[in-house]
Amino acid sequence: MKLILIGFGVVGQGFAEILQNKAGQLPGFAPSIIGVITATKGSLYRSRGLDIGALLSAAQTGSFAAYPEQAGLRRDMTASDIISAGSADVLVELSPTNLDTAQPALAYCHQALEAGLHLVLANKGPVALDHANLRNKAASKGLQLRYEATVMAGTPVMQLAEEALAGCAIQAARGILNGTTNYILTQMEAGMSYTEALTQAQALGYAETDPAGDVEGWDAAGKVLILASALFGSRLKMSDLDVSGITRISSDDITEAKAAGQRYKLIAEATPNGGAVKAMRLPLSDPLASVAGSTNAITLETDLMGAVTLIGAGAGKLETGSAILSDLLAIQRVAGSG
Amino acid sequence: MKLILIGFGVVGQGFAEILQNKAGQLPGFAPSIIGVITATKGSLYRSRGLDIGALLSAAQTGSFAAYPEQAGLRRDMTASDIISAGSADVLVELSPTNLDTAQPALAYCHQALEAGLHLVLANKGPVALDHANLRNKAASKGLQLRYEATVMAGTPVMQLAEEALAGCAIQAARGILNGTTNYILTQMEAGMSYTEALTQAQALGYAETDPAGDVEGWDAAGKVLILASALFGSRLKMSDLDVSGITRISSDDITEAKAAGQRYKLIAEATPNGGAVKAMRLPLSDPLASVAGSTNAITLETDLMGAVTLIGAGAGKLETGSAILSDLLAIQRVAGSG
Repeated sequence: MKLILIGFGVVGQGFAEILQNKAGQLPGFAPSIIGVITATKGSLYRSRGLDIGALLSAAQTGSFAAYPEQAGLRRDMTASDIISAGSADVLVELSPTNLDTAQPALAYCHQALEAGLHLVLANKGPVALDHANLRNKAASKGLQLRYEATVMAGTPVMQLAEEALAGCAIQAARGILNGTTNYILTQMEAGMSYTEALTQAQALGYAETDPAGDVEGWDAAGKVLILASALFGSRLKMSDLDVSGITRISSDDITEAKAAGQRYKLIAEATPNGGAVKAMRLPLSDPLASVAGSTNAITLETDLMGAVTLIGAGAGKLETGSAILSDLLAIQRVAGSG
Repeated sequence: MKLILIGFGVVGQGFAEILQNKAGQLPGFAPSIIGVITATKGSLYRSRGLDIGALLSAAQTGSFAAYPEQAGLRRDMTASDIISAGSADVLVELSPTNLDTAQPALAYCHQALEAGLHLVLANKGPVALDHANLRNKAASKGLQLRYEATVMAGTPVMQLAEEALAGCAIQAARGILNGTTNYILTQMEAGMSYTEALTQAQALGYAETDPAGDVEGWDAAGKVLILASALFGSRLKMSDLDVSGITRISSDDITEAKAAGQRYKLIAEATPNGGAVKAMRLPLSDPLASVAGSTNAITLETDLMGAVTLIGAGAGKLETGSAILSDLLAIQRVAGSG
């Protein structure tokens, strides 16, 4: 299985480390990275495969200039060149999420499907904004479109919903899909102010320097768009969702909820009728109420099984990298590509 | 996909109802029940397929004598005859669990694999007592062995562990795998005595008239044997496990735990080193602590993802029936059998 990676930041490096550490441990699975394209480090292509250790070392220097010479190595190819070079089986799209246009990643995704490549994404943009078209194009070509990493990092909600629960009709999905805000709410319940908790989340690397995407609910909203399209076939836009964040939740609100035996959580919800992101008071008996810190969770309401809840990491280098591995293993199981 | 069912009690009828209700809703999936063998209702075989509605109606009368005549119908065949008749693709083993010998189900399972049939079980016995041999035999013939229903009914822990988390090494599994005892502990925490709670569990149909298998931990222990073999390749016997139940937990113990911010749960655990079933005090921050009533849950400790927790129904007619459907859909995905 020959892979092209677009993007080689935290997730890409986490995925490469996993491949390096698990080499030979996964029977019948022998992927090879043949191309890596980044915005800042340069690009590398070698149809016979790149050396993962050297790739990781070069990435540490900030530039692929540090990657050693090898026979057949090319350093001058664009993403489009590498996709159309015809050697790869899978495009793995790991570039930073853009929820406004999803470009240029979206164009590469379409190009890859047209060129006969399976598609795996950690980049939420193309799935949030154009899932239906990507899915239809993939289906028409007998290719797989996989994006486990986009919703709960490696916690496999998509495989749970689409495969393990394939016999059930899913009626609603509601969850805690943003770890930063859940961390902040957990710390506020323990007595911190919003500002203190946000500062701590930034210090721990959970929150960006500009935290708006997290605390105003937009990151979770992108995940709602993905779930709504994947589970219900909805074609929603961000403007169709009712989105608010946690910026208006005060310490008094948290204390009041606690006194009533409840807990504030930023709940992302998708149903056949639409979607929303809003802070809600949950009773402590709700499995989502006990999800603390940066952990994510989702409850799927189903026809045959009632509620099924999955709880796990929603971010992290190896956690998200493992979602890429899981998607590739699923492609191999179904497509039989070795 | 042509199916033989051994056993047609609650789970079998739930599965048949699901097939009837979902006919045509699952694209590309058109299973046909060609044989049903029971200990008390008789047996039916028709290579061109039985009528599911008529099968369910006949089962309601307690005897397949009420099933109408059809061309090619046979009422006199044994399980062994039907397996060796050569028309079926999958044996679905739904007869009552026997954790001492697993017979006669185990012999039918081996016969079916030797005859080239995939195997799906809700019966815990053969998987708990002979998983390794069944797995090896299935693998050597390119057949699938699936038993989602045996651990948490339709809550898909096996697909989660073996497929969705296929890239992770699982280091331990611990969970609440018996709904009856969890219901009793939940009611005791709400103020009931053990005897009152047990009586209520029996009235609701959760507990058997002889509740020993549940309250002494043996049902959960059978599931530990399954997990230990499936996840770690262990070949444990029941006597290798450290098993105790909830019969020695008093209302005072529950009150004392509650005062300490903890909760008693009957925890079933499998690790590479062995397995156990025992009542434990969990802190309320443990996701398993908030699992109430007859609900089941499991936490898988993994190398790449840390803890992943799955919560859902652990019993029920449609809930368990849906596990059979899920296993058959998985067989179709992988084997491509239509």
